[in-house]
Amino acid sequence: MSRKIRMGMIGGGEGSFIGAVHRMAANLDGQIELVAGCFSSQKERNKISGKQLFIEPRRIYSDFESMAKGEATLPEGERIDFVSIVTPNHLHYTPAMAFLKEGFHVVCDKPMTFTLKEALELRKAAQKSKKLFMLTHNYSGYPMIQEAREQVKKGALGKILKIVVEYSQGWLLKRIEREGQKQAVWRTDPKKAGISCCIGDIGTHGEHLARFVTGLEIESLCADLTTFIKGRPLEDDGNVLLRYKGGAKGVLISSQIMAGEENNLVLRVYGEKASLEWHQEHPNELSLKFLDQPRQILRRGNSYIGDVAKDYTRIPFGHPEAFLEAFANLYQSMVRAIRHRESTSDPTLLRDFPGVEDGVKGMAFVETVVRSSKSSQKWTKLTKS
Amino acid sequence: MSRKIRMGMIGGGEGSFIGAVHRMAANLDGQIELVAGCFSSQKERNKISGKQLFIEPRRIYSDFESMAKGEATLPEGERIDFVSIVTPNHLHYTPAMAFLKEGFHVVCDKPMTFTLKEALELRKAAQKSKKLFMLTHNYSGYPMIQEAREQVKKGALGKILKIVVEYSQGWLLKRIEREGQKQAVWRTDPKKAGISCCIGDIGTHGEHLARFVTGLEIESLCADLTTFIKGRPLEDDGNVLLRYKGGAKGVLISSQIMAGEENNLVLRVYGEKASLEWHQEHPNELSLKFLDQPRQILRRGNSYIGDVAKDYTRIPFGHPEAFLEAFANLYQSMVRAIRHRESTSDPTLLRDFPGVEDGVKGMAFVETVVRSSKSSQKWTKLTKS
Amino acid sequence: MSRKIRMGMIGGGEGSFIGAVHRMAANLDGQIELVAGCFSSQKERNKISGKQLFIEPRRIYSDFESMAKGEATLPEGERIDFVSIVTPNHLHYTPAMAFLKEGFHVVCDKPMTFTLKEALELRKAAQKSKKLFMLTHNYSGYPMIQEAREQVKKGALGKILKIVVEYSQGWLLKRIEREGQKQAVWRTDPKKAGISCCIGDIGTHGEHLARFVTGLEIESLCADLTTFIKGRPLEDDGNVLLRYKGGAKGVLISSQIMAGEENNLVLRVYGEKASLEWHQEHPNELSLKFLDQPRQILRRGNSYIGDVAKDYTRIPFGHPEAFLEAFANLYQSMVRAIRHRESTSDPTLLRDFPGVEDGVKGMAFVETVVRSSKSSQKWTKLTKS
Amino acid sequence: MSRKIRMGMIGGGEGSFIGAVHRMAANLDGQIELVAGCFSSQKERNKISGKQLFIEPRRIYSDFESMAKGEATLPEGERIDFVSIVTPNHLHYTPAMAFLKEGFHVVCDKPMTFTLKEALELRKAAQKSKKLFMLTHNYSGYPMIQEAREQVKKGALGKILKIVVEYSQGWLLKRIEREGQKQAVWRTDPKKAGISCCIGDIGTHGEHLARFVTGLEIESLCADLTTFIKGRPLEDDGNVLLRYKGGAKGVLISSQIMAGEENNLVLRVYGEKASLEWHQEHPNELSLKFLDQPRQILRRGNSYIGDVAKDYTRIPFGHPEAFLEAFANLYQSMVRAIRHRESTSDPTLLRDFPGVEDGVKGMAFVETVVRSSKSSQKWTKLTKS
Repeated sequence: MSRKIRMGMIGGGEGSFIGAVHRMAANLDGQIELVAGCFSSQKERNKISGKQLFIEPRRIYSDFESMAKGEATLPEGERIDFVSIVTPNHLHYTPAMAFLKEGFHVVCDKPMTFTLKEALELRKAAQKSKKLFMLTHNYSGYPMIQEAREQVKKGALGKILKIVVEYSQGWLLKRIEREGQKQAVWRTDPKKAGISCCIGDIGTHGEHLARFVTGLEIESLCADLTTFIKGRPLEDDGNVLLRYKGGAKGVLISSQIMAGEENNLVLRVYGEKASLEWHQEHPNELSLKFLDQPRQILRRGNSYIGDVAKDYTRIPFGHPEAFLEAFANLYQSMVRAIRHRESTSDPTLLRDFPGVEDGVKGMAFVETVVRSSKSSQKWTKLTKS
Repeated sequence: MSRKIRMGMIGGGEGSFIGAVHRMAANLDGQIELVAGCFSSQKERNKISGKQLFIEPRRIYSDFESMAKGEATLPEGERIDFVSIVTPNHLHYTPAMAFLKEGFHVVCDKPMTFTLKEALELRKAAQKSKKLFMLTHNYSGYPMIQEAREQVKKGALGKILKIVVEYSQGWLLKRIEREGQKQAVWRTDPKKAGISCCIGDIGTHGEHLARFVTGLEIESLCADLTTFIKGRPLEDDGNVLLRYKGGAKGVLISSQIMAGEENNLVLRVYGEKASLEWHQEHPNELSLKFLDQPRQILRRGNSYIGDVAKDYTRIPFGHPEAFLEAFANLYQSMVRAIRHRESTSDPTLLRDFPGVEDGVKGMAFVETVVRSSKSSQKWTKLTKS
Repeated sequence: MSRKIRMGMIGGGEGSFIGAVHRMAANLDGQIELVAGCFSSQKERNKISGKQLFIEPRRIYSDFESMAKGEATLPEGERIDFVSIVTPNHLHYTPAMAFLKEGFHVVCDKPMTFTLKEALELRKAAQKSKKLFMLTHNYSGYPMIQEAREQVKKGALGKILKIVVEYSQGWLLKRIEREGQKQAVWRTDPKKAGISCCIGDIGTHGEHLARFVTGLEIESLCADLTTFIKGRPLEDDGNVLLRYKGGAKGVLISSQIMAGEENNLVLRVYGEKASLEWHQEHPNELSLKFLDQPRQILRRGNSYIGDVAKDYTRIPFGHPEAFLEAFANLYQSMVRAIRHRESTSDPTLLRDFPGVEDGVKGMAFVETVVRSSKSSQKWTKLTKS
Repeated sequence: MSRKIRMGMIGGGEGSFIGAVHRMAANLDGQIELVAGCFSSQKERNKISGKQLFIEPRRIYSDFESMAKGEATLPEGERIDFVSIVTPNHLHYTPAMAFLKEGFHVVCDKPMTFTLKEALELRKAAQKSKKLFMLTHNYSGYPMIQEAREQVKKGALGKILKIVVEYSQGWLLKRIEREGQKQAVWRTDPKKAGISCCIGDIGTHGEHLARFVTGLEIESLCADLTTFIKGRPLEDDGNVLLRYKGGAKGVLISSQIMAGEENNLVLRVYGEKASLEWHQEHPNELSLKFLDQPRQILRRGNSYIGDVAKDYTRIPFGHPEAFLEAFANLYQSMVRAIRHRESTSDPTLLRDFPGVEDGVKGMAFVETVVRSSKSSQKWTKLTKS
């Protein structure tokens, strides 16, 4: 562990939300240094952003192609180890392809691509490249989600019967894209967001989280998407009935117009023996419920928590960890994977993390939901991917 | 208010759950005396039950027909004012018809009848009789549900966009009907429960509550019913997508196999201006959420609570009222309605309560859900009623 | 169980809070009929109250002495079995003595008497009379408080180290006794309430609850009473440090001026092995916390709940029971005790309930708290009683 | 903002809890680089720690004196800007004095010193030095604590009447110092912790938080300290009655032996108009309660939150921020203060933070509590400082 890992960034210029999140997540553990970037397609904004981030001027690139190439020509001990792509959806695919091609590991925000077709191609490229590819389904980085997954794996719930997952927000209840709210503008624009707003942006997090914790795959679904705010070209609300392979049933509720909801991501999984419940807004607790035993509240950091979740924990119980720590856990997983490739890290420290396969599944989910809702409003088999 | 109101009861013998609930609800305010009944079709059980309830032996009847007729022949100052029917679903219709015919007011448990056809006939009979008919959709008796309804009425939420209602239980996760658990035996038996177990028993409460609070009527729905416990002839789980007249969307989740859930009835209503949330298991609070104001927790019994909810409240704030008090509120509504007919009560005290029309709508809902799920699993218009 | 138990009432006329509570509690289980009373010293109010409660005019008495004597002369099958005394504090002792003397069982509201001296005399009289005497420390009637007590008894917590009990309210934050608010008027009047307002009214509930659940007795205390509202002759706030016999420490917080608190009665007990926590405003849950196990939430009505708590429960889990049900449990205990004396009830149904000894201890507690705070503000041994 | 701020560290070697916390807090915002340190008095541990933290070997110092001197001799553009002292209590004073003397800003963990005498001297030295001194009363860095303080300042609560503050833990319920648990060993050792364990370690956080939010100063107090675990030389539990200047009353509960409590720091402040409540374990919410309005839940990141709290917030509402973010806010305040001195930062960005005066008050509090409990167990005036 003799050096810091070097990161580059695509997107995330001044005023960006998710770029700043990625950087704080990368900073937290002191293992990563941000050394290069193309933060904005606007020249001036790019420069200022780079300067504010203490980037050497020569490594503030004007476009991602020149950055990929430029970094590739730097000496090994200087050039970036990986790039983080934090642009809107339509600008994930090309930079990801470019950096993979130049031999860099990639961290990419979700949804992975603009279309399912792009996702399939990116998967091919990533697999061929042998480079690391991480998709920031960041909620999987929460310790108690790791614990939930372990509880399912070890059979604490028995066979899973039912999943209820919700990711509800209210911030798009007014048409704030009209007022130029940056986050709203691109998410509601089909040219930047793709075929879906609500499902692509947050519904996919719900789908991923349910799959991550239970291991179950959707077989078919029946979706009802709605655009509640007139004039908006993409949906801002969606309710989906789910049927999982193996017989489990599910409901996914996702919305951006539920007044007063913030990031109300809640996962509930019901099995033959017990059930679990987790709330993103109170992430240090995991509830287990039983037919004939007292409910249990498992709290992060305690002795009874499994080893996997402990590995995702930094500080003792009772001092809450939250969103940025969970996000940082993904970056920490990437750091460990890179060090492992350099044989400078204990292989037992290697972690599973969301990758290109999850990106493909997410895009197939979005595509199927939109198809179910738009064309026929009936039960639709998940697009093969 | 010179006398107690006299009640008779059909069903509710020794060991019954809901019969005991009705009696406690009727007792609470000291306005009602139970004076007659046919508590069981088993002769001995009927006798013992009546004796335990301090009923005069001559008014412990062996069947409901003789009770209806017998009571009708008693002098006005002695005979019952109304009957409460607390039998399983298949035994609601005939006693209700018999007592209406003999000129008695009726309180009937839900679902109102065994079939939609019976419901339509009962409605006709009830309307013709001019007698009072109350359906015990008891959750509407909670003060904070009354407050929720008033908040919607006065426009605090603006136009309603979305409704999420859940009534989940876990008690049928094991096949306890095989072990003779009385409540499970009849609810899972199509000859006693009708075409539905889960939706008829508790899903209808969810449907009613959402309608009661918002005033919205379902236009069409798409249901996915499941029988998770093998060998059980009726469904024990159901997920339903809803479309309301006027454009609101909804989700109804109902289950009897969600491990560790007890009576997790939760109503959430989202409007253009604000949203509300209520949990039956913590019934003294109602949350209001806004886009740009602090969340509000309205608590029963406070000065800022509306007059309607205040009228459903007995004791000051902070001393919780609960299930039996809410149930008792329906009985209190019936008492007031009867006294009003005798001109012994202030007309301003009259209250709205769930009646025969709600019973018809409930049966239409059950019928449509089953039809949507069984035959076609697609969007189905609500059966006209 | 061949007849209803007959109750008389002293106090509790029209507009009374606690009188109505006692009646609803007595009504709930259908085992008690209210047949006589002296509801008010104001003649007209007394009459109207009696009439509204369907009492025969001849058994609406103008004073408690004539009621005690009058009832005593009625035939055994007609006269009351017990009297409930629900007047302000200064009017507990004399009626209690009168009814005991005439051979009636007594239910009395708390604090038991106006002075400790009265309490000691009443204890002597009650013990001599061999009649039943119940003090309505009603919070002990909550099922999960019974469960808490059983958990302590069976050693789940190990040796008790610390107790934190709080009963905070805010309703006296304004000087509403000036505006004639009935409940405030007498509670803040030393001629009616005695030497204490806040501690006598609600602090004693906290003291009793802690003692009831843990069995521990206070050895000495250090109190700081405050009258925050100028001009009020009695304290409206009190903080007390406690030392229990055997070494446990405690804190009791009680207030009537903590803005926004309603009846925030919270008991926490910490032992060498585990701790428990219970909130009156969410009474169906009891939390158990451990050093190295998941927290447990015990919920009323479940299979894992002990037999004692089950006996205090009427309806299944998930349908909350609350304040009136807990209060009714005390009345139910009295009913069983009376039936037991008549050999008409199973002796195994007999229950422990708060009695005259608790009343003496409560008055000793109040007296010691006031003494500690007023004279010396230092550690003071509990007055012997 | 043309450069990163350079930090040194005293203590915090491999396996340290609080050192790692300080580093993560310093890392989060990418404004600080750790460039020098003396992480342990054990030579090997010091070296390994420095290497793991990517410190140049020549700046891994063997003792704090040589570090203070060594750094002072480095060129201005290279030497540290400030030092963070994260050693046990007995090793705060001398390094702080040394670095102040050499002209460095100081961040110091709490309690500030080993004795009140040291605290007074350190205050003198710090004031004379004109250097920045920050005491990491880290809970004040929580956005909703900043909001609470603003609410008090703007009069939302009216005059403060009562404060209840609790900081309870359970981790010292077993004598784990015997098993060599590092954190327990020094905290229970009077040679390293000073005259107090529980009050010094966490009670002072409670005292500070109450003072920080309300601005009220303690006038006198009455404390009851207990050592529940036999053989432990310092107290592990304390209950304190408080009287504030101006008439407010308070209770402080602090413990390390309350089974199942983690870092249960709760602040409640009651005023003439309203009250507030904040729980460290759910730090994104602040409750406001009123006499006659719905309770309000203020949530971090919303539009209605005041500017001060907004300035302590990084990410939008609903994505929780927690302990490390709050801690990082203090480091961010230090960064801004340093940049301000270099005229490279907007003066409007300057923030108030806990400093040497708070350290003196904290030590006076500890000293008074111990004196009240040990010698006389009575009301004791706060030691003048």
